[in-house]
Amino acid sequence: MAPSITTLKDVALAAGVAVSTASRALAGNPVVAKSTRDRVLYYATEMNYRPNAQARALRNSKSHIIGVIIPSLVNPYFAAMADAIQHQASIAGYSTIISSTSEDPDQFIDSLHVLADQRVDGILVVPYSGTEESLATIADAGTPVVLVDRELPGTQHVSVASDPHEGIAAAVAHLVEQGHRQIGYLSGPMSTSTGQSRYDEFLRACAHHGLENQPIYHGGYDRINGVEGTTELLEQGVSAIIAGDTMMSIGALEACHSTAIKIGEDLALIGFDDQPVLRLQANPISVIDQQVGTMGRTALELLLELMAGKDPPPSILIPTHFIVRSSSNFTPRMITKKEVSS
Amino acid sequence: MAPSITTLKDVALAAGVAVSTASRALAGNPVVAKSTRDRVLYYATEMNYRPNAQARALRNSKSHIIGVIIPSLVNPYFAAMADAIQHQASIAGYSTIISSTSEDPDQFIDSLHVLADQRVDGILVVPYSGTEESLATIADAGTPVVLVDRELPGTQHVSVASDPHEGIAAAVAHLVEQGHRQIGYLSGPMSTSTGQSRYDEFLRACAHHGLENQPIYHGGYDRINGVEGTTELLEQGVSAIIAGDTMMSIGALEACHSTAIKIGEDLALIGFDDQPVLRLQANPISVIDQQVGTMGRTALELLLELMAGKDPPPSILIPTHFIVRSSSNFTPRMITKKEVSS
Repeated sequence: MAPSITTLKDVALAAGVAVSTASRALAGNPVVAKSTRDRVLYYATEMNYRPNAQARALRNSKSHIIGVIIPSLVNPYFAAMADAIQHQASIAGYSTIISSTSEDPDQFIDSLHVLADQRVDGILVVPYSGTEESLATIADAGTPVVLVDRELPGTQHVSVASDPHEGIAAAVAHLVEQGHRQIGYLSGPMSTSTGQSRYDEFLRACAHHGLENQPIYHGGYDRINGVEGTTELLEQGVSAIIAGDTMMSIGALEACHSTAIKIGEDLALIGFDDQPVLRLQANPISVIDQQVGTMGRTALELLLELMAGKDPPPSILIPTHFIVRSSSNFTPRMITKKEVSS
Repeated sequence: MAPSITTLKDVALAAGVAVSTASRALAGNPVVAKSTRDRVLYYATEMNYRPNAQARALRNSKSHIIGVIIPSLVNPYFAAMADAIQHQASIAGYSTIISSTSEDPDQFIDSLHVLADQRVDGILVVPYSGTEESLATIADAGTPVVLVDRELPGTQHVSVASDPHEGIAAAVAHLVEQGHRQIGYLSGPMSTSTGQSRYDEFLRACAHHGLENQPIYHGGYDRINGVEGTTELLEQGVSAIIAGDTMMSIGALEACHSTAIKIGEDLALIGFDDQPVLRLQANPISVIDQQVGTMGRTALELLLELMAGKDPPPSILIPTHFIVRSSSNFTPRMITKKEVSS
């Protein structure tokens, strides 16, 4: 099954050096010590490594496989994104292999190398800050990379992300209009561009309406943080909560369902992303929608352009929209701390 | 589980640097400061880090990558399964790449060959009838294969699936006890062992209680079929519905939320699989639970045994359990056709 030709990685592993080092050694780059270079050359000869054959094979026989790295499989937002990418790739004649990082930046780097070692024609990733060097290594080695959902400031990678401005501004305006003055925010991690930009946007929207020092919970993009954060914000007496991603929205739902607090009566809840779990409620949840399907399909299209050798297209920001549903569309009676703890 | 050899990550942790930095330092990359490089080299020597150990692994042609083929990314049941597999694989020192077939048997065969062409050490698949030959080809070529969730009767593959008997028998008994005599069933496709065995089990359980000719909707494992099927069954005047998988359960929820029918008052609904979308409802949904985490972890363990060259372990059936919640725990007033169509 596996191709019987020797790859550069095979040579590098045999010589006990990084692929980048093997590459430099074979290119005669003087930064590689002579002893190392000799060892790499020895194994390259011994293992019948033929870079030209490999290069030809690569040029002529693309694998027609695209690699996708998402932070989580159980987060329905990323599952929907991977599904949209896969569907669009399939239309273009490409197969997709997916790797999940369990929201762990270290595992992201592992996943990146696993996919790069597979012969993928291009990679779509949801990155973290701190992974810039690893991504640069992959891209410099010739594998086209497009960032999706999150950006990496200061890098040259093409990205497709959502612009939180419109959705969050409309959500806060809606809550203020209903009479809310204590709006809690469940914020995602600052190591992600989405966590940072949505947080900034929430503060800006609040300031626009003269709301200062609104209660904020900082946590990770997961269900448990949504539960904890909602409990903390309710204890601080908020009458409305905006959740900063799908998983925190699900956690907020869970926190409310496990107490006597009725969403859409006692508490206005606004979630992030138009996911079935938020829509399919007796009181459907208002959401800030990122159009995840459009995002995935657009990222795939840009990756295909890069893979076709075209000039890097400009990065794209997809607007967010606010969708009002009954979870927030009511006049609040303020919740007191007493009610919450009872 | 994990081999006790020192990994690059161990060295990086000891030196207090990122894995990527450690990699560059050992490769002699001048972007790494000399003091950092010296620290990394010190720990690499001290901890007896030998990159050649990996070369040995390569010669035995281990990639330490496991391939997983699931029918759908947006089905939270399979997402949870893939997540459990990946977590367990990671503990054992393996990376995971995932391919989704969008519930299309043809795409299953494509995915199988894509993964086999990659250098994976073993493959976990959720199969379809009609894919026996492709699976045999892969297994005969020496790549260990374990089936998960679904079986393939007449083949020799090791499988881990759930036994629908206990859960479905208990669900039907519960509904009969509450007074239901018209129980609708949303059945999955007969091209899957799960679709077939759950259907058989439902008929058997109904017969046990003297219920003949109960209304049955036959469809695929997707949301749309759940919506359509629920609408059809309600038109036939059922007072209770059992859904045959997660996606049909979600479709049933959607059908009810989009009409005036109140789950837990007008209709008893029992879903399949203990998923958040079913639990996180104002009236939480009773479910037949397959313990998907246990299923995924068990399948991975059996695959590791095969990969280690052990004799094929026996296939495993994991029992299903019925979890009663308020969606079905009430005395029904019968729904007439008139109410449904109004």
